[in-house]
Amino acid sequence: MSETATAPLQDHSDAAFDVFSRQCPSRGTLEHVTGRWGGLTLGALYESGARFNELRRRVDGVSEKMLSQTLHALERDGLVHRDAQLTNPPRVDYGLTPLGRQVAERLTALIELVEGRMPEVVEARARYDAAHGA
Amino acid sequence: MSETATAPLQDHSDAAFDVFSRQCPSRGTLEHVTGRWGGLTLGALYESGARFNELRRRVDGVSEKMLSQTLHALERDGLVHRDAQLTNPPRVDYGLTPLGRQVAERLTALIELVEGRMPEVVEARARYDAAHGA
Repeated sequence: MSETATAPLQDHSDAAFDVFSRQCPSRGTLEHVTGRWGGLTLGALYESGARFNELRRRVDGVSEKMLSQTLHALERDGLVHRDAQLTNPPRVDYGLTPLGRQVAERLTALIELVEGRMPEVVEARARYDAAHGA
Repeated sequence: MSETATAPLQDHSDAAFDVFSRQCPSRGTLEHVTGRWGGLTLGALYESGARFNELRRRVDGVSEKMLSQTLHALERDGLVHRDAQLTNPPRVDYGLTPLGRQVAERLTALIELVEGRMPEVVEARARYDAAHGA
């Protein structure tokens, strides 16, 4: 799971876990965190804790099934906690654990950079398409 | 593409682009950046520029086809540049653009956090599986 002697590019990390290695469990966690719905779910929960249906509206386009799977994977990884209150009807709130908060903070920094620089991305796409005859 | 009046959770962003909105082009760019292979490709190029086959070895498990598609999407978004040298045989190097470098920097911060905290994640998974009878 750490660097191999034959790695063509240097690995500067001393960590025992290495996302570049396909067997490393950290790759699965990175995918939960950055996957299509995982990233948006963490980003939404970074703004505030929320109930399932609030999250579903915020993460525009997610299905009930996908949001449910996403929340389970994030809960299993210890990034999201599920807080069920014994009211009638029962009420379930989702929020970030301390580790989930740290992950979401870095993810949000990435999301904000991407959103803020989209004018450059849109320009680059137009240039690329013009050059490649699209 | 910006916040809507009915958004259940507050959107603190003033940006014109909003990844939470399914029509916004920033969502596609975020997916190129954080997708299974996009994230690892940017992470590898953040360590150093590389040729196609070097990247393929570094991003353990990626197929030739997927790496090629990933590099094209990142090039089109203006995050990766392709540098073809007119040697014989021709040599093509891939590297990050200045914007790609900024994106990769934030992504690498996220990757390093995830790798570094995997012992906690592994523990959380064991607790979850025990509680859910897995």
